[in-house]
Amino acid sequence: MNQLRVYFSQRPEGEPGPEVFEIRSEPAPTAADLGEGDVLVAVKVLSLDPYMRGRMMARKSYIPGFALGEVFPVGAVGRVVASSNPRFPVDSHVYGMLGMEEYTLVRGGKGLVAVDPSLAPLSYYLGVMGMPGLTAWVGLLDIGRPQPGEMVYVSAAAGAVGQVVGQIAKLKGCRVVGSAGGEAKVRFLVDELGFDAAWDRHAVSTRDGLKEHCPGGVDVYFDNVGGPTLDAAIARMNDRGRAVICGMISQYSLERPDPVYSLINVLVRRLTIQGFIIFDHQHRMPAFMKEMAGWLQAGDVRYREDVSAGLESAPEAFLRMMRGDKIGKMLVQVAQ
Amino acid sequence: MNQLRVYFSQRPEGEPGPEVFEIRSEPAPTAADLGEGDVLVAVKVLSLDPYMRGRMMARKSYIPGFALGEVFPVGAVGRVVASSNPRFPVDSHVYGMLGMEEYTLVRGGKGLVAVDPSLAPLSYYLGVMGMPGLTAWVGLLDIGRPQPGEMVYVSAAAGAVGQVVGQIAKLKGCRVVGSAGGEAKVRFLVDELGFDAAWDRHAVSTRDGLKEHCPGGVDVYFDNVGGPTLDAAIARMNDRGRAVICGMISQYSLERPDPVYSLINVLVRRLTIQGFIIFDHQHRMPAFMKEMAGWLQAGDVRYREDVSAGLESAPEAFLRMMRGDKIGKMLVQVAQ
Repeated sequence: MNQLRVYFSQRPEGEPGPEVFEIRSEPAPTAADLGEGDVLVAVKVLSLDPYMRGRMMARKSYIPGFALGEVFPVGAVGRVVASSNPRFPVDSHVYGMLGMEEYTLVRGGKGLVAVDPSLAPLSYYLGVMGMPGLTAWVGLLDIGRPQPGEMVYVSAAAGAVGQVVGQIAKLKGCRVVGSAGGEAKVRFLVDELGFDAAWDRHAVSTRDGLKEHCPGGVDVYFDNVGGPTLDAAIARMNDRGRAVICGMISQYSLERPDPVYSLINVLVRRLTIQGFIIFDHQHRMPAFMKEMAGWLQAGDVRYREDVSAGLESAPEAFLRMMRGDKIGKMLVQVAQ
Repeated sequence: MNQLRVYFSQRPEGEPGPEVFEIRSEPAPTAADLGEGDVLVAVKVLSLDPYMRGRMMARKSYIPGFALGEVFPVGAVGRVVASSNPRFPVDSHVYGMLGMEEYTLVRGGKGLVAVDPSLAPLSYYLGVMGMPGLTAWVGLLDIGRPQPGEMVYVSAAAGAVGQVVGQIAKLKGCRVVGSAGGEAKVRFLVDELGFDAAWDRHAVSTRDGLKEHCPGGVDVYFDNVGGPTLDAAIARMNDRGRAVICGMISQYSLERPDPVYSLINVLVRRLTIQGFIIFDHQHRMPAFMKEMAGWLQAGDVRYREDVSAGLESAPEAFLRMMRGDKIGKMLVQVAQ
């Protein structure tokens, strides 16, 4: 039986385009291929994330780059269809770094984590109950350390991480503002997620948005964007403010990074700018999942996904994500 | 009896020049001017510090600006020559924010601290045993938190703060490199203070200096300079490195701040950039003085001063400090 697989075929220069991906139809692994401890997973939903852009570069980043000519490894959830591993029986569900393909053979079950689809929708383990949710929770609470009544600003606020950051900040008694690309996202943030204010970054500069919506300044800035947005946010921070650097999506495809001019405020206002990588904080997963499951069950946290249908749609979905042309967590639904 | 006094006569635009200062000869206060609790101090040594540049600006900074037409208030030490305050008897010595003048009448003895010239030279209370020493100690140990064996880089390393930072780092088991302006300072750092390496910033770029002397990267960067030096240091930091922002002397006189391009490393290498202002850390003074007095007595810490003679030399000494044309702590010896 053949399956679709998506290969990393070309390094992007500047903005990536469809040439980065190559889709091939190739024989799928079967139960006959299983060795001792191996698991065959039917990939159900796969996750597209901005950090993948960094892995497409030849230059050094915080995780190893993708190898040219490999099937993209991506965070994904799936159903076990054949197994010689007692920890992952047939018909159980798993999360792991799987291939961008319909079936992945996982040698020794390495890196798989059992997930429970009765606790939350399977796709949530790629989002609000998974890495992006943990990223929001660790970044905001462990690193940003907001106090009740403080002002939190989130950029890319409608994204996989941003929407969770804002809702956690509200639950912790903060005021929250966000910026996002387009009026639909702004409405989503304010009307559905309860942000105190939001603005369309295409229509309003960060400087003007902060001036209007944070006249008293920003205490915690959760940065998903970098560049001029970070520059303007630093210029608007209160004494002892904290800028949590979670991502810099505006900078990943630039030949030369954007300049930042406002660092004198780090001195004058005694700011802390701190970057983090979620892989360093995996030990916080159990505490996070416990708190987040409670919030989801109580209806205190909502989560928006943008689900693209079929593995063949993955390249365009990735490019759409990089353009910011979606609301919420970018996912691909895979059909076998 | 008349005395010399130095007034703030004009706000600088760009680099300050002599027009910022005006020296007048005016009647000095006498014992007859003392009210209940007042103290009359003969100023012996006064401190010139880069933060004064910030106070000359109209724009908001971390401390109130100087008022045009006032006698500059400066950190100084002196001898009590008349007193109606039992805490500060005649012939005792004090530290405080005194006027840039020969005699200062301190109403109620406000802000004065008794100092002991038998424990350390009087001038040291303006330097290694005073605010600059505390700045070095708090910034390096409380904020930079270097571990034994880590690499510490200090800019403006021969300055009032930098020379102390480097020596404390060595005492704590770190490797230390520094940059400073001119070969004489480089020799001072390596030959007299025991830095592992140093370079002349006029001859060697920060990038090249770090490449040569820190091939394994920088763990703690103690920034006194800002701008391109900070930019290059961030680009060279190791995972989980800490940049302590103590000063940005390269930026204070600029119309438009220099750009910084390397902030992507804050994300990729999980860096922390943290600014601090010593006024927030005064409670650490007793612990600091205890440790520093021990080091000085044991000969473990040396301290270089540049002492300018006479109050009338203060303007030129300040300008010389801003140009970096001195080695060590800038002081003015006042003669009555």
